[in-house]
Amino acid sequence: MNSPIIESLIESFESLPGIGRKSAERISFHILEKMSDDDVNRMVSGIVSAKQKIHFCSVCQNLTDADPCKICASQKRDKSVICVVENPEDVAAIENTNEFNGVYHVLHGALSPMDGISPDDLKISELLNRLSDDTVKEVIMATNPTVNGTATAVYISKLLAPFDVTVTRIAHGIPIGSDIEYADKMTIIKALEGRQKM
Amino acid sequence: MNSPIIESLIESFESLPGIGRKSAERISFHILEKMSDDDVNRMVSGIVSAKQKIHFCSVCQNLTDADPCKICASQKRDKSVICVVENPEDVAAIENTNEFNGVYHVLHGALSPMDGISPDDLKISELLNRLSDDTVKEVIMATNPTVNGTATAVYISKLLAPFDVTVTRIAHGIPIGSDIEYADKMTIIKALEGRQKM
Repeated sequence: MNSPIIESLIESFESLPGIGRKSAERISFHILEKMSDDDVNRMVSGIVSAKQKIHFCSVCQNLTDADPCKICASQKRDKSVICVVENPEDVAAIENTNEFNGVYHVLHGALSPMDGISPDDLKISELLNRLSDDTVKEVIMATNPTVNGTATAVYISKLLAPFDVTVTRIAHGIPIGSDIEYADKMTIIKALEGRQKM
Repeated sequence: MNSPIIESLIESFESLPGIGRKSAERISFHILEKMSDDDVNRMVSGIVSAKQKIHFCSVCQNLTDADPCKICASQKRDKSVICVVENPEDVAAIENTNEFNGVYHVLHGALSPMDGISPDDLKISELLNRLSDDTVKEVIMATNPTVNGTATAVYISKLLAPFDVTVTRIAHGIPIGSDIEYADKMTIIKALEGRQKM
């Protein structure tokens, strides 16, 4: 019953993760009814400019506006420990604990044959390239403790076997089946502390 | 820990209704990590064009791309019954039932002294203007059964007293499909008061 223009606005919000039909409607009507033209333009140009300026760090593949990113460029970070995660959200969650002083590697997903996500779709070769000199001593597999995340950790740990690095897995402090990005600080700290050799 | 550009993107989504910090993060990372530049540009121009093309109907004040809106312009709608609602979402919900054949009037809010929303902030004078000839026979107050919605209905019904129209209020009662034992006191009282012959 909505005008097709409103309908397509609603649908574009509905396509975003975690937004259902009702939320998409509320957001759309909020934009059309309550927000000023200036506010909308500011929001929209924020999206466009973020999309233009933010890209993957050439080292760790995390989202960044500088290259290399702040963490990879920092003199204070321990370059001998790489924490491998699925997504940028996971980096943000681990950084939030202020307990990890190494660097990261973002895979941008996990292996998932069901969804057609194969090793080539992940930033795995970029990880192997980082092991070409002997700077790196330890690789912490911090993929999610889900079927796909664990399979990804096992797969990568096998690829790392020929290299002279210790491969560890974060402890199952993270409840099985849930996401790292939703874990609380203490759980993340415990999981980092309790990491085991793979 | 995020780059300020990502942070301000997250905050702009967080300012939308029903979007918390976590959802705003997920949406932002989805846009930056998963969506193509084309997809983002399409979404953004959809927002801009909707904001440009959609305005308030000069008759009923609902959101529309035509003026008057499709409902007000339709020959098939009964112009003698106006259903007064708070928001465009309410029009969509009532239209969805396919049971109402009158026309609407959107107030764009409800009286709320706490939030500084006074009668001048609502489209009340526009409603009174619609009663200048004797087309309208009934005004249904379909504002929400909340303190503010009810106060708004009472306020407007007093303003309508001098006009030759019947002012009615939508029925309140137990929602279909729900349990009486879980209904709140006021709903049960209203349901008993509004009982109908079977």
